[in-house]
Amino acid sequence: MEKFICFSLVVSVASFLFAGWLYSWVKKQPSSNKRVAEVGQLIRNGANTFLRKEYTVLARFAGVVAILILLFLPSPIWKSNWTENIIMAASYIAGTFFSAIAGKIGMQISTIANVKAAEAAQKGIKTSFLAGFRGGAVMGMAVVGASLLGVSAVMLLTKDTTSLLGFSFGASSLALFAKAGGGIFTKTADVSADLAGKVELGIPEDDPRNPAVIADNVGDNVGDCAGMGADLFDSNVASLAAALVMGFALDKATGNYLNTAMVFCFGALGLLASIIGVATARIGKIGNPTKALNSSTYVTTGIYIALTTVATYLFDFQWRIWAACIVGLLVGVVIGITSDYFTDDSKKPVRFVAKASRSGPAFTILSGVSYGMLSVLPAMIGIAVASLAAYKLCEPIGDGYAMFGISMSAVGMLSIVGMIVSNDAYGPIVDNARGLVEMGGLGEKALEVTDELDSAGNTVKAVTKGFSIAAAGLTVIALLGAFMSEVNEAAEALGLGANYLKGFDIMNPMVFFGMIVGAAIPVVFSAMLMLGVDRNAQRMIAEIHRQFKEIAGLKEGREGVVPEYDKCIEIATIGAIRELIPAGLMAIIATITVGFIGGVQAIGGYLGGNIVSGLLFAIFMSNAGGLWDNAKKHVEAGNEGGKGSEAHKSAVVGDTVGDPFKDTAGPSINTQITVVSLVSSLMSVIFLTFSIF
Amino acid sequence: MEKFICFSLVVSVASFLFAGWLYSWVKKQPSSNKRVAEVGQLIRNGANTFLRKEYTVLARFAGVVAILILLFLPSPIWKSNWTENIIMAASYIAGTFFSAIAGKIGMQISTIANVKAAEAAQKGIKTSFLAGFRGGAVMGMAVVGASLLGVSAVMLLTKDTTSLLGFSFGASSLALFAKAGGGIFTKTADVSADLAGKVELGIPEDDPRNPAVIADNVGDNVGDCAGMGADLFDSNVASLAAALVMGFALDKATGNYLNTAMVFCFGALGLLASIIGVATARIGKIGNPTKALNSSTYVTTGIYIALTTVATYLFDFQWRIWAACIVGLLVGVVIGITSDYFTDDSKKPVRFVAKASRSGPAFTILSGVSYGMLSVLPAMIGIAVASLAAYKLCEPIGDGYAMFGISMSAVGMLSIVGMIVSNDAYGPIVDNARGLVEMGGLGEKALEVTDELDSAGNTVKAVTKGFSIAAAGLTVIALLGAFMSEVNEAAEALGLGANYLKGFDIMNPMVFFGMIVGAAIPVVFSAMLMLGVDRNAQRMIAEIHRQFKEIAGLKEGREGVVPEYDKCIEIATIGAIRELIPAGLMAIIATITVGFIGGVQAIGGYLGGNIVSGLLFAIFMSNAGGLWDNAKKHVEAGNEGGKGSEAHKSAVVGDTVGDPFKDTAGPSINTQITVVSLVSSLMSVIFLTFSIF
Repeated sequence: MEKFICFSLVVSVASFLFAGWLYSWVKKQPSSNKRVAEVGQLIRNGANTFLRKEYTVLARFAGVVAILILLFLPSPIWKSNWTENIIMAASYIAGTFFSAIAGKIGMQISTIANVKAAEAAQKGIKTSFLAGFRGGAVMGMAVVGASLLGVSAVMLLTKDTTSLLGFSFGASSLALFAKAGGGIFTKTADVSADLAGKVELGIPEDDPRNPAVIADNVGDNVGDCAGMGADLFDSNVASLAAALVMGFALDKATGNYLNTAMVFCFGALGLLASIIGVATARIGKIGNPTKALNSSTYVTTGIYIALTTVATYLFDFQWRIWAACIVGLLVGVVIGITSDYFTDDSKKPVRFVAKASRSGPAFTILSGVSYGMLSVLPAMIGIAVASLAAYKLCEPIGDGYAMFGISMSAVGMLSIVGMIVSNDAYGPIVDNARGLVEMGGLGEKALEVTDELDSAGNTVKAVTKGFSIAAAGLTVIALLGAFMSEVNEAAEALGLGANYLKGFDIMNPMVFFGMIVGAAIPVVFSAMLMLGVDRNAQRMIAEIHRQFKEIAGLKEGREGVVPEYDKCIEIATIGAIRELIPAGLMAIIATITVGFIGGVQAIGGYLGGNIVSGLLFAIFMSNAGGLWDNAKKHVEAGNEGGKGSEAHKSAVVGDTVGDPFKDTAGPSINTQITVVSLVSSLMSVIFLTFSIF
Repeated sequence: MEKFICFSLVVSVASFLFAGWLYSWVKKQPSSNKRVAEVGQLIRNGANTFLRKEYTVLARFAGVVAILILLFLPSPIWKSNWTENIIMAASYIAGTFFSAIAGKIGMQISTIANVKAAEAAQKGIKTSFLAGFRGGAVMGMAVVGASLLGVSAVMLLTKDTTSLLGFSFGASSLALFAKAGGGIFTKTADVSADLAGKVELGIPEDDPRNPAVIADNVGDNVGDCAGMGADLFDSNVASLAAALVMGFALDKATGNYLNTAMVFCFGALGLLASIIGVATARIGKIGNPTKALNSSTYVTTGIYIALTTVATYLFDFQWRIWAACIVGLLVGVVIGITSDYFTDDSKKPVRFVAKASRSGPAFTILSGVSYGMLSVLPAMIGIAVASLAAYKLCEPIGDGYAMFGISMSAVGMLSIVGMIVSNDAYGPIVDNARGLVEMGGLGEKALEVTDELDSAGNTVKAVTKGFSIAAAGLTVIALLGAFMSEVNEAAEALGLGANYLKGFDIMNPMVFFGMIVGAAIPVVFSAMLMLGVDRNAQRMIAEIHRQFKEIAGLKEGREGVVPEYDKCIEIATIGAIRELIPAGLMAIIATITVGFIGGVQAIGGYLGGNIVSGLLFAIFMSNAGGLWDNAKKHVEAGNEGGKGSEAHKSAVVGDTVGDPFKDTAGPSINTQITVVSLVSSLMSVIFLTFSIF
């Protein structure tokens, strides 16, 4: 086992070195335009301000949680071996820290790469693409490298999987802030900039007169880039932790630790495959960025399959588990492709919604909601089939292997996460670059290049988003298995007998009670975040109106008159943190309440309901949002009346509604489910000991 | 037992007599205005056309299903006693027939009462209210009378509870057509009339120039009145059937049939309480219709509690079961009140949405969606608490009583359904009356009266809708128990041993597989219905545009020029039926597929997922829709800029989106869940015998 952990450590160090090389490559690219540098600096400062504020609040929050962990987890300190509590608290802090570092690195590079990509666009698509892509890849390598490094280090130091759950919980806490907080920030800025700028005043997107325009560009970085990185860091760590909790428990019986070894080996190979995929990515002669991004994903997938086949053969791993892992990966790719169907503007849904927009905004909304709801079917069936196949494949190996199979299928799905993050982080960088080209006045040709790069980013985003929701789905199913494993271990220690918990029967009223309450939580959580965006955007729009009214010459674009960008950034930052906390606390308090009322049975049902409803709403909201976004772009490309037509106005309304759907609420649900699952696992001993019924 | 079944029969006959008296009272009310009579006739004809077409398609559908039942259910005819299959098919047909009769009666009276209420409005609110209320009460009495009569008759004739599931399935099939088909019809008409009339042309609501105006009024009758009646008929029958399946199985062991007796006794007492409640309802001296409607609900609740207390004492029923029943009733009332909070225009959510509308339609939608999503919390917790309390109350009585307790809690919640239907059917009648007053030109005073009555209808609707979703929720939980009961009975007959099925463990991959797929079904079902409305409305808007273009003088309102109302009715009717069938088939085929793949375990999970996600979406969509409706009314009452302002335009968009949410998709989900639950129960033998895994 140890040699595989060391192998993971080596690969993760390699990924950091590779990230360093990419970083310096991007930094070396020329930049000369003063205006672009200025605006780039404004964005960088805004992003850093947000990150600083967020991390300050987070540090306080993490401090309080760490103290609570020290006192109560895994069991109350006065009842347990206190070293366990210290290790747990330390692992938790390490989890937040590693994730924060990865986020900070990603943010750093993305606010450099945007400037480089903008300037390179003047010379053509090739270098501009590479600047964006390699900038994104720094984030990808940092995220996956940090997660593998953290998990390996914790495992090597503690030799205990429960502390891994603590590490994972740290990652989730940070993801909650980064993803949900960043999501509120980015959409506050985006919605207000669009509505007050484009709709009310009729000035173009990214117009430097708009006071919210810098906040909007900062938002792309903090929400889509840092937030998404933290989210996938979280999923990746959680999937590894779940697999290790179950695999390690199985290994204790046999003593050969093959399952644990397999988890580390497969995780490391995934990162290796991503490194190769990133290193070989080129835009090619055709110059089609979408194709370049997608083909590097397929290349990575192929390399991963090849590497794991060899490893399984060499190290005598179970072929059935290997198969479960590959099923997970393939289903992930298939789900990505189907979610592309619902959001691609050459396919029926987007065209239908664009056409419906001719009849007014109500029809844009109705048809978009409907297609978004339809889109849950293939994804849900895919997840159901992947989990069933993994279970059935691994069941014959022996007791407990079925759930371990599901967790390995999640590991498989997340194996190419390095590539996914790279592709995903590419999006906000080129989106920013487009803004910089516009604000810096770099000319029509550069604008065309960045437009093409941006549109590729949007298409790829749909695929990666479908992928990451599916991966989170499988991960949380695996976490349910980890929860049961934790409860049984705790029950044995408490003298309640081995295999105390056999499962969660829906007909048990406690399970059913938990299930119904659990199902409501993601819905309420999303609603709270969206209301947060809404309230925050109202405040920001008022500020934009005030600036246009009070700053003389701003509306007319008089030379030298600039809006007060920082006011808008401040509103978005403070609002995001203020609106996020109640939603996060609600989810955690609901979990604890259900646990104290109904014990572990109620929590089992609660997690089941939470996963099911969370997946539904996450898929629905992400896809509906992506659909509206592309329907608007489809109209703007000159269809259904083109820009300025009634259809366009309706499509803009759809896009505005879709923004918080796809960038705030939808993707934050993943994190909510993971947080709640981990809280449950960590508190299993407490729920076992105290509960009303 | 028999004497209680006879008691039920007597009470249901009494309710029909009472309905007859109400019917003749309404019919006796004076009517003289020629124009009102004319328009009333148009509405009546349109409603009858729709009903005839719908029932024709339904008869064919029911014929096919009856033949399938004859061949395959409860077990394939070549393997079983064929009399069982004949009884099952006959029960099924009886179920559709009883429901159709109740719908027809309700429709008949509502298209008379609307005219009477309109004319009475000229003289003041008192008689006008009574005409609307008593018209609605005819429907209420017919629905509950027919359901109790049917259930009692089937039980008396067959002495077998499985045939009751056949009867219930018949009721569900009809409800699927009536509720979902009617829902598509009504919203097609409403959306197109509003959009093409109010928004595009700027003519008022209910303007006789609008070609869709009659279809809109017909829609109120077929969707809100007949559809809602069929829906609650369905829920009522299903709750009684579920309770009887379980109660009868328990009684077979003891031989005293007290549980079966209790179900009939409590059902009959509920109807009796509703009769008294309706008979004593008066608008009083203050003349507040909302108060009159609500207070009659509370009176009925009080009478029911008193009557059941006496009955439990006299006939030595179990007090614990009585308590479960009362808990259900009270939780139903509480959920009704909370759903009122989210849709009442004096409360925060409606005001917030109205205010947000100032910033444009995107904010109307975002805030409405958010509050709609928030509103699931109290309802879900209410259902969770009711089922947990019922279970825990009845568990100590003995094995199997816990689930029976839940089913009795559903019976309790539905006990006052006669009153609920009366209040609910009141809504479309007075809505119609308002239209008739406008089109007949009965003057300002009459308009004021009907406006007040209409607004009371809308407020009460929110309460009754929350109530009926909650009742459906508990009923389907009880149906899950009935499913298990059926499977175990079948398993014993097949020699698989007693208590073959102990429950559905979430950790069993089959259950989990079923749960994820089952959860997707209501979402996809709703989406298909909404796309149906969307497509249909597009067709109808095109027709309205055509008429305004081709019929000379229509737009200007030239004397004697009338639009072709029947064309619009035809489009709505044909479209509704065409759009409905794929959605219904999808749900049924998905159920059968999951059953054949994973057997009864997968179906258990499937039903669990279906219930949970169905409840979430039903509550969300109903409440969001009601909220937008009232936000628009709030703006129209002169707030946030009043009629014609930007806020008003946005609020109209919200209302248009909300219409299919609250009147098509949301309430149809109940029926979808019931249909799927009953299909599962009926096919339990087949799923037990054949399945892939």
